[in-house]
Amino acid sequence: MTNPILVEVTRGALVESRHRAAIAVADSDGAEVFAVGEAATPIFPRSAVKALQAVALVETGAADRYDLNDQELALACASHSGEAAHVAGVERMLAKAGLDASALRCGAHWPIAQAAAAALAKTGAPSALHNNCSGKHAGFLCLACASGVDHANYFQPDHPVQRQVRAVLEDFTGAALGEEVCAIDGCSVPTWAVSLSKLAVAFAKFGTGRGLSRERALAAARLRQACANEPWYVAGTGRFCTEIMQRFGARVFVKTGAEGVYCAALPGQGLGIALKCDDGASRAAQALMAALIARFLPLEAADQAALMALKEPVLRNWNGIEIGQLRVTEAI
Amino acid sequence: MTNPILVEVTRGALVESRHRAAIAVADSDGAEVFAVGEAATPIFPRSAVKALQAVALVETGAADRYDLNDQELALACASHSGEAAHVAGVERMLAKAGLDASALRCGAHWPIAQAAAAALAKTGAPSALHNNCSGKHAGFLCLACASGVDHANYFQPDHPVQRQVRAVLEDFTGAALGEEVCAIDGCSVPTWAVSLSKLAVAFAKFGTGRGLSRERALAAARLRQACANEPWYVAGTGRFCTEIMQRFGARVFVKTGAEGVYCAALPGQGLGIALKCDDGASRAAQALMAALIARFLPLEAADQAALMALKEPVLRNWNGIEIGQLRVTEAI
Repeated sequence: MTNPILVEVTRGALVESRHRAAIAVADSDGAEVFAVGEAATPIFPRSAVKALQAVALVETGAADRYDLNDQELALACASHSGEAAHVAGVERMLAKAGLDASALRCGAHWPIAQAAAAALAKTGAPSALHNNCSGKHAGFLCLACASGVDHANYFQPDHPVQRQVRAVLEDFTGAALGEEVCAIDGCSVPTWAVSLSKLAVAFAKFGTGRGLSRERALAAARLRQACANEPWYVAGTGRFCTEIMQRFGARVFVKTGAEGVYCAALPGQGLGIALKCDDGASRAAQALMAALIARFLPLEAADQAALMALKEPVLRNWNGIEIGQLRVTEAI
Repeated sequence: MTNPILVEVTRGALVESRHRAAIAVADSDGAEVFAVGEAATPIFPRSAVKALQAVALVETGAADRYDLNDQELALACASHSGEAAHVAGVERMLAKAGLDASALRCGAHWPIAQAAAAALAKTGAPSALHNNCSGKHAGFLCLACASGVDHANYFQPDHPVQRQVRAVLEDFTGAALGEEVCAIDGCSVPTWAVSLSKLAVAFAKFGTGRGLSRERALAAARLRQACANEPWYVAGTGRFCTEIMQRFGARVFVKTGAEGVYCAALPGQGLGIALKCDDGASRAAQALMAALIARFLPLEAADQAALMALKEPVLRNWNGIEIGQLRVTEAI
C-alpha cells in the first residue's frame, strides 16, 4: 500500500507530519472521473455511509409511519455532536416508535462537542443518547418496529434490519458484501469494506437517483433534502459536514466517517466522491474533501475563500499563536 | 520521505489503517545500535524532551533553592493529565518561587484525564494549571526567578531561560539548534528540530551521564530518579509513560511528545531510543515504544506480557466488543 502523501502539516518552516490517502471521484454510470492512489482496495466506510444506511428507513415507509421530520431524518444520517437538540431529537424518534433510550445498543460516550460535554458533566454522565451514532440507531429501531420484527438485536448482521441495510448498500455500490469484508463498527453495527471507486459511484447514485429504483431514488432525494434543510443535525456546531451543507445547501451532501474517511455527492455535477487517509487522520481527510469540493463544484469568490480556509487551515496553539498549517500537496 | 509501515490497525479480518515511522537507537558515544527509516531527518521532539528542558532547573541550583521534591521535578518533566494532584503540585512549585498561576504562559486546555475534566466541569473551566505542560512552565519560572531575571517573557526564544535550555539541548544532542529549525510548541515555548539519531544519543547520555559534565550528569540522574520515584506525576492515571516507569522504575525513562514522538533511555543498557510516526499518531508511536523496550530490555515473563499488551493492544468499541487490534509489522 503506497498511496501518495496528499497532506502535509507544517510547524514553523518545516513539515512536521505527513498524511497519505487515496481518492475516487465517479459518476453514477461507474465512470472514473478522478482517482489518486489505490482506489480499488476495499476500505471500511464507517459512518460515511450513514445516509445509505438510512435509505431503508425511508423507502419502506417506516419514516412516514412515524412521521419523521427533516431534523429526525438528518439525525438518522448523522454523526452528531451530542448537543442538547441532537439528544432531544433522538429521544423524539424513539418515542415516535414507542421506545426510549433503553432500546439503543450503540454504547455511551461523552458528547463530541466540548461545551455539551462540560454541561452534561455538571449533572450527570453520558448515555447512549449522547453517542454520535444514536440517531442512526434510532432510525434502525424505527425500521424494526414499523416492520413488526423484534428490535432487541437490531444491530446484529443477521437481523432483518441489517440485512435490509446490506442489500441497499450492495445496490448502491454494486459490490457483494459478504462475511469476509464484514467487521464491527464503533457502535456495534456491521460495517462492510468497499473500494473507494465503488463508494464514489454509490454517492453519485445517491446524489442523482440514477441507477436506482424509483422508490430508492425518492428515498435518497428525501434524505438529501432533509440534510440540506437541517445540516446542524448531521454533525453539529462548527463541524465540517454541517458548515459545508449550511453553505452549499442541496448542492453538496457530505459525510465524515471514522479512520479518515469522507464521502460526498455533488448532485448538480452528477458526481460522487470517496476518500480515505491511510493512517485514519480526520484532519487530513477533511482538508482533502474541501479541496475536492473546490475542484468539482463551480464556486463564487466567497465560497472559494471558505473552502480554502478548510483546505489549508492555519494551526494555532493554546495561546492562539499561529504555529503552522495543513496543506494539500497535490494539484487537487 | 518513505518510512516503512511499522504499525497496522486491524478491524475484523482486514487492515483498516497503517502508520509509517522512523526509529533510532544509539549509545552515548553516538554509535547506532538500531535504525529504521529516515533517522537522520530533523523532527520536532516536542514534549518528548521535557526532561532535557528541565536539566538547567536542576544544574543551576534553582531546584535546590526552591526545595523542589521528586513530585515537583517529575512535574517539570511531565505531560500531565491535569488530575487534582498534578494541579496542586504545579501550584506548589509556583508558590515556592513566590508566584501563582497568573505567571504561566502555556495557555489553558481541559485536563487530558476525562474524569478530571468531568470533575472540573462541575465547578469551573480549565486554567493554565490544567495544561499538560504547566509543570514544565513552572520549572522555567523557578529557573527565571532563581536566576534573578525578569520572568515575564520566559517562554520567548531569546529569554535567558530558553537560551539556557537550548544550550543544554545542543550539548545533549550534539546538534546546532539555529533559528532555521526553531518553531513554536503547543504551549508557546520554542521547539527545535533534531534528527532521531541525535535524539537517541541525547537520551543515551541522559540515561548514563556519559559525555556530559559532572554537574549535568548529576542533574540528569536526579531527574531520572525523581521520575522513577514519582512516575504518576510524569503523565497520570492509566497513561503509558506512567505505567512503564511504575513497572520498570529506574530501568526505563520514557516520555511521549505530540505528533507521534517517543523518546526513552535504558540506563542499564547504555541506550537511548527516539521514534516518530510520519502522521503524528500517538497510538502507533506507543505500540512501537513498547516493542523497542521489549527488544532491548532483559525481561521477566510478566514484563513480557505487559509489554505485549501495549505493543499489540486489542481494540474495543463503545460496548466493549473486540473489533480489532494494533500490531507492529516489522521484527522489532
